[in-house]
Amino acid sequence: MPLRLATTQVDFAARFDAFLLTKRETAADVETAVKAILADVEARGDDALIEYSRRFDRIDLGEIGIRVPQAEIDAAQNAVDPETLKALELARDRIQAYHQRQLPKDDRWRDDIGVELGYRWTAVEAAGLYVPGGTAAYPSSVLMNAVPAKVAGVPRLVVTVPAPGGVLNPLVLAAAKLAGVDEVHRVGGAQAIAALAYGTQTIRPVAKIVGPGNAYVACAKRLVFGRVGIDMIAGPSEVLIIADRDGNPDWIAADLLAQAEHDVSAQSILITDDAALADAVEAAVERQLGTLSRAGVAAASWRDFGAIITVRDLEEALPLADRIAAEHLEIATQDAEALAARIRNAGAIFLGHHTPEAIGDYVAGSNHVLPTARSARFSSGLGVLDFMKRTSLLRCDAGALKALGPAAIALGTAEGLDAHARSVAIRLNLDRA
Amino acid sequence: MPLRLATTQVDFAARFDAFLLTKRETAADVETAVKAILADVEARGDDALIEYSRRFDRIDLGEIGIRVPQAEIDAAQNAVDPETLKALELARDRIQAYHQRQLPKDDRWRDDIGVELGYRWTAVEAAGLYVPGGTAAYPSSVLMNAVPAKVAGVPRLVVTVPAPGGVLNPLVLAAAKLAGVDEVHRVGGAQAIAALAYGTQTIRPVAKIVGPGNAYVACAKRLVFGRVGIDMIAGPSEVLIIADRDGNPDWIAADLLAQAEHDVSAQSILITDDAALADAVEAAVERQLGTLSRAGVAAASWRDFGAIITVRDLEEALPLADRIAAEHLEIATQDAEALAARIRNAGAIFLGHHTPEAIGDYVAGSNHVLPTARSARFSSGLGVLDFMKRTSLLRCDAGALKALGPAAIALGTAEGLDAHARSVAIRLNLDRA
Repeated sequence: MPLRLATTQVDFAARFDAFLLTKRETAADVETAVKAILADVEARGDDALIEYSRRFDRIDLGEIGIRVPQAEIDAAQNAVDPETLKALELARDRIQAYHQRQLPKDDRWRDDIGVELGYRWTAVEAAGLYVPGGTAAYPSSVLMNAVPAKVAGVPRLVVTVPAPGGVLNPLVLAAAKLAGVDEVHRVGGAQAIAALAYGTQTIRPVAKIVGPGNAYVACAKRLVFGRVGIDMIAGPSEVLIIADRDGNPDWIAADLLAQAEHDVSAQSILITDDAALADAVEAAVERQLGTLSRAGVAAASWRDFGAIITVRDLEEALPLADRIAAEHLEIATQDAEALAARIRNAGAIFLGHHTPEAIGDYVAGSNHVLPTARSARFSSGLGVLDFMKRTSLLRCDAGALKALGPAAIALGTAEGLDAHARSVAIRLNLDRA
Repeated sequence: MPLRLATTQVDFAARFDAFLLTKRETAADVETAVKAILADVEARGDDALIEYSRRFDRIDLGEIGIRVPQAEIDAAQNAVDPETLKALELARDRIQAYHQRQLPKDDRWRDDIGVELGYRWTAVEAAGLYVPGGTAAYPSSVLMNAVPAKVAGVPRLVVTVPAPGGVLNPLVLAAAKLAGVDEVHRVGGAQAIAALAYGTQTIRPVAKIVGPGNAYVACAKRLVFGRVGIDMIAGPSEVLIIADRDGNPDWIAADLLAQAEHDVSAQSILITDDAALADAVEAAVERQLGTLSRAGVAAASWRDFGAIITVRDLEEALPLADRIAAEHLEIATQDAEALAARIRNAGAIFLGHHTPEAIGDYVAGSNHVLPTARSARFSSGLGVLDFMKRTSLLRCDAGALKALGPAAIALGTAEGLDAHARSVAIRLNLDRA
């Protein structure tokens, strides 16, 4: 049974607050282990990578090599069935087209007192993409992380992916090739993050690390942050669907379950002004659950974290949606556009009845790496800007400095920073030192 | 004596590597203390703020109030001398004009198969700005953090600033008023960060926290990250000056000292192809040092972390500058623009002989909150985007879903995510569940 809330309940506000604060993950305490791995890889480089891969992945990288040779990547691509490969290519092309529109523009201007101002965007010199091994090795996720980096112009894009028992997912290698990844290394865990941050003999260091991973990987990313840049630490996925009587219960149920099947900690929420729809969706979820290959996962997620909230009218749904700040927000109502325009916090909004979130996961072109756990209140999905940085540019000539200088001297003096003031005054022959 | 390096040294590469890895800060281990404060403020709200302020700042907020009343802010502004106030206003206006050009554009389009795509930028609903107390309470820093938030459209901007012994810097209050800050609270330390993140009876929570602070504040920001967004954790300031024989040794020395006077951990570096200039600058630094009110700080910084690197030609300077990735890069050479165009990593570039970095600190209009400690390799200075987030938008009609759906179904199936595939198939009457 999912949680049922209604804004008509007298204690709704308190119940909703408690719902928002529900923890869906227990943070494993892996910091001590991760710190040791990081230090070891920093000190011993490839030797440490070989040792940890032997221990954790049961492979001998000393023998088969850390870097995956191009021939192996090509062979993997050839092994993928043609329909899936075509779908991956379509996804790659659409992700590329979408993200090209995100490329920022440089700006440079001269103001009315002659100061030249501006800023310029450049790509990071190298980026690393962590790809999880095993069942969570999703080729779509490789495309979503790698394509924006290449659109940004990152000259060197490195994938690390664990190969437990020596096995790599051919779909992952194919996706890496399609996305233009420059190097693939078969190493995972905290040791892969260490290699990307500090560099080893085989893996040169990068400036930015992105991509999802388990508790060890997430902890390692947090610890190397500062030495390199990282993306957000992704939490379990979530969807919020706002629907009115127009909604199709079977379609909505399918969308709730598409989220729930990701992970037992995933969260699916329905907000509706139609109590009959709420009941119909709940029944449809129960019906569809049984037929899923990941039924156990989806059922646990729906039972533990699923919620159906009934509201008096859709007006009431807006502030609730902003507080939930969902990673994915589907609006399946008569006037989806008007509602969407009034939402402040959401990672991505899927409008209307024919836009299941799974379309955005794969082939729409927009990015599926989106802020989870209410972080859409302050952060954005992955995009081209995550692989670029802005440098500001400033140029004064003697005249411009003469015009602006006195104010800078006044503020430097007011802040007690003599040398700041002098560095301006000395150029204006005002320095009395 | 600053460190002297030359690319002609046989072991230059190793020396330069060691120089880059020099730690300038020792991280104080304050995490246990900070965790206790955060938990206490979360549990007891205002009462905890009052207790910590009594203990750490020797003031009774229970008596004088946590929030600074508008009349007190107005009075502070009236107490600022007219020349300084005018300089602050000039700075505010120029920062505003600069950052307005950073406002991102929304985008929305329909592709050739009828899919509607796009994204939209919105401001965070509330932002908190931490302002340090005591001597580091810089009004320029208030403007640099607050103005971009207001340009971004943040409806509620909250300043917290400790008032040790009850004293607030009137310049800080004046700057907050000029920048359009909505609330000022006289509370500092980890307890202020806790209040901004969790909320108390007086201080409602915000979505994003920015601003510099001591080790307790930095640790608290790290710990609340995720619950709220934070800006970069700023390290000690640094400048790199690239100069050729055209450089004026006195001017360059003044600029190096303007950086060094910030903090004993600040760093000033000169790279030049002219050995005579290197010597002249070193001598000029010694001469000017004695006259500074913060001579002790500047001397320690220059002695411990200052460096002069001589290169065979300016061509050699470029890769060194990219590895240093300086917060501030001054290029005082004949052809500064051409060199600047070939630099990838720098927080801000100051071009030509008449652009001392202090101009950028105060009145140029560009932001002085810039990436330190080599993080310009992957991050940008503070700007309007730090107070906004992007929501992606997606809409398919039945026709568009029919065109794109099969590829999504193929990828969902390939990834073993049945419900993903079904959520598309069910809308295309392809579902056989």
